[in-house]
Amino acid sequence: MTDKQRKLSTEAYKGVRDFYPEDMFIQKHIFDLWKKHVEAFGYVEYNASVLEPSELYKAKSGDEIVNEQTYSFKDRGDRDVTLRPEMTPTLARMVAGRKRELGFPLRWYSIPNLFRYEQPQRGRLREHWQLNVDIIGVESIQAEIEIIQIAYNLTKAFGLKDADFEIRINNRMIVNYVLKDVFALSDEQSHVLSKLIDRKEKMSAEEFKDKVATIFEATPDKAQKFLTLINSQNFEEYTGHLPQTKEEHESLCLIKEVIVGLEALGIRNVRFDQTLMRGFDYYTGTVFEVFDNNPKNRRAILGGGRYDEILGIFGEEKVPFIGFGAGDVVVRDLMETYGTLPTFKPAARLAICPTDLPFIPYANEIAQKIRQAGISVAVDYTQKKIGDKVKNADKNGIPYVICVGEEEQKSGKFKIKNLKTREEVSLNEENIIKSLR
Amino acid sequence: MTDKQRKLSTEAYKGVRDFYPEDMFIQKHIFDLWKKHVEAFGYVEYNASVLEPSELYKAKSGDEIVNEQTYSFKDRGDRDVTLRPEMTPTLARMVAGRKRELGFPLRWYSIPNLFRYEQPQRGRLREHWQLNVDIIGVESIQAEIEIIQIAYNLTKAFGLKDADFEIRINNRMIVNYVLKDVFALSDEQSHVLSKLIDRKEKMSAEEFKDKVATIFEATPDKAQKFLTLINSQNFEEYTGHLPQTKEEHESLCLIKEVIVGLEALGIRNVRFDQTLMRGFDYYTGTVFEVFDNNPKNRRAILGGGRYDEILGIFGEEKVPFIGFGAGDVVVRDLMETYGTLPTFKPAARLAICPTDLPFIPYANEIAQKIRQAGISVAVDYTQKKIGDKVKNADKNGIPYVICVGEEEQKSGKFKIKNLKTREEVSLNEENIIKSLR
Repeated sequence: MTDKQRKLSTEAYKGVRDFYPEDMFIQKHIFDLWKKHVEAFGYVEYNASVLEPSELYKAKSGDEIVNEQTYSFKDRGDRDVTLRPEMTPTLARMVAGRKRELGFPLRWYSIPNLFRYEQPQRGRLREHWQLNVDIIGVESIQAEIEIIQIAYNLTKAFGLKDADFEIRINNRMIVNYVLKDVFALSDEQSHVLSKLIDRKEKMSAEEFKDKVATIFEATPDKAQKFLTLINSQNFEEYTGHLPQTKEEHESLCLIKEVIVGLEALGIRNVRFDQTLMRGFDYYTGTVFEVFDNNPKNRRAILGGGRYDEILGIFGEEKVPFIGFGAGDVVVRDLMETYGTLPTFKPAARLAICPTDLPFIPYANEIAQKIRQAGISVAVDYTQKKIGDKVKNADKNGIPYVICVGEEEQKSGKFKIKNLKTREEVSLNEENIIKSLR
Repeated sequence: MTDKQRKLSTEAYKGVRDFYPEDMFIQKHIFDLWKKHVEAFGYVEYNASVLEPSELYKAKSGDEIVNEQTYSFKDRGDRDVTLRPEMTPTLARMVAGRKRELGFPLRWYSIPNLFRYEQPQRGRLREHWQLNVDIIGVESIQAEIEIIQIAYNLTKAFGLKDADFEIRINNRMIVNYVLKDVFALSDEQSHVLSKLIDRKEKMSAEEFKDKVATIFEATPDKAQKFLTLINSQNFEEYTGHLPQTKEEHESLCLIKEVIVGLEALGIRNVRFDQTLMRGFDYYTGTVFEVFDNNPKNRRAILGGGRYDEILGIFGEEKVPFIGFGAGDVVVRDLMETYGTLPTFKPAARLAICPTDLPFIPYANEIAQKIRQAGISVAVDYTQKKIGDKVKNADKNGIPYVICVGEEEQKSGKFKIKNLKTREEVSLNEENIIKSLR
């Protein structure tokens, strides 16, 4: 390295994160909570590479992300490769690949890292980790209820109370019914209008009204009817504006049944939201999101839905899929907002500081015995002063320390110091093990 | 999706793996063993993004991998980005970036996924996960001893006995002394010869001899002397061929001390190997590898060394680093060879199969109570026949099943079936919890 004169930067690549041990500790805490709550319902973990053939994302996904915001490149063998921007296409690919061998229903989860080329901002980075939870092979709304129940449990696990958030729910079937049957829009008009509805909360009422008017240019009376409908205050008002047909009845029943099913499980902060679309075009039924009501932080915490047609891109027959994704950056922000971030604790419970080099073998011997009892021990091998060694153990968050020198080697007794309380007790090895357990 | 006619392939990208739940289970088992053994010594986990600025690898690394086998591309903002091919440059970057705040010695580990564009073959894929264990800030050979002890513990943990493997050790200082001082080779000649030594085991003795002759073209007597030295049978023979100088003495003492230190810990399968180089140019002292002696599988299981000059590329002063990397593909192959692969067990301990739709709410109620006792439960919501539901639970590896119908709802008693032994016991909910704990 010595012949290298130019200094390299120590910065990470733009928009991604370094996880120093303190950050990694928080990330592990988030992952552990995720795993605990999904595994309670029998979900099993899967994974895949971040590298996927680019064609996997060229099937229409409806999200601008996929076409304009991917990390895509040609490999040295001229293959088009993409760093996965979402996990759903990979999940579908894996299920399609072993459809005949797998025992449905499947309950699968994964915590992949995902990549999007976009301007980094609060809550949105170029790389994030996302919990993906999916139940595959269940047609009935029991799947909706379970998936939303898990989303609810997770939100509570990160410290939010019922009043802090709401679960917004809609159904793509009712959206399609409204756009295509009630308002008789073409496929293209429907697409443009559904994208507009998706962004409704991000613009003023005036702006929204103008844009609706443009879409309904030829039929201004319909524009007014549509605005009245989309601005309904609640489920009853919304349904009141719709013609009573079989299709309308069925889709609305589904929404109602999910809400009632969740209520029976004690989940009451669920609200029908006729403007909820969720980005991806592959959704075919229920869509939902958990929304943070905190005035400082109003935004979706997680979201998902049903996408029963996804295997079509692989030429496979329909298998019902429903699931959601929850990102780690958003959760970390949430935990900061709600004061539930954990305090860093290293694996090591005890630091052993030899007072001088000749006592290292004895320190190692003691360390080894304590490790055999399942307790993590770090020995300081540096030639620092003993006081600095103790300070350093404290700096690294190790809770207890013993110094080992001539006296200790003779007596087999050690002053074990609690670095938080500053209390010191003199114990032999056996009692050190007992007290650390 | 319906308008998409062309079928997509369900294959993963070439040379990377899909982790179906059974594969993920094995990978988690490997990671858990890794974590347990390094955390016992007080190591803490860190991580970073797979995306790194390409310049991080342009500093000479000595490994052809880095220049010819990376996944490198330009992002949409025209930055040169590389998918990390190894973790060491990232570790060095992170340590350099916070050098003043960190409390040395550091014991850090990580399990990153690494990328290399190469022809996939047994034990070598385009993406693999690699345990990286490093101790930073310790100049003494105590660091060598601890690092090699951990490597030894891990190898044993995967099922190998002492006789199944050996730990090969060398020191770059003695290599440099031999090439530059004893044989007075130029920097370039030294570089070529050290690369040749690295590949010695991969060619015939004749071929090696010829290549050595080419390097020592002008001085054939030296070529013979060199061959005698490099072909030494053991440490004593090797040292006997060297002129007795201070430098020779010091480097050889270090190797001897490490071997003696490991012996004191009961680790006796350590062997000096004058041909061991390890690929990377950044090594400055001890290099070592764990080598599988199994005749079917002769190869390095893991390897590492000391690289005290690495922070130089960031313009930082020297900090001692020593560590090793161990890959998951190699470990999985090892466990297959030694018959130590674990059997798949899903999180769910119990499957509840409602006999018909009306009993789902009651099944959910029971499931919820059992989950609250910390036991994972999966409810089958499909409309399959009850026998198929039970079969499917078995297929997914869930060990116990209960069916819930009218009788069960009335009596509150359930026949819990062990799907392995086929035994059935009739228990109430409370006793189900007790028996599953």
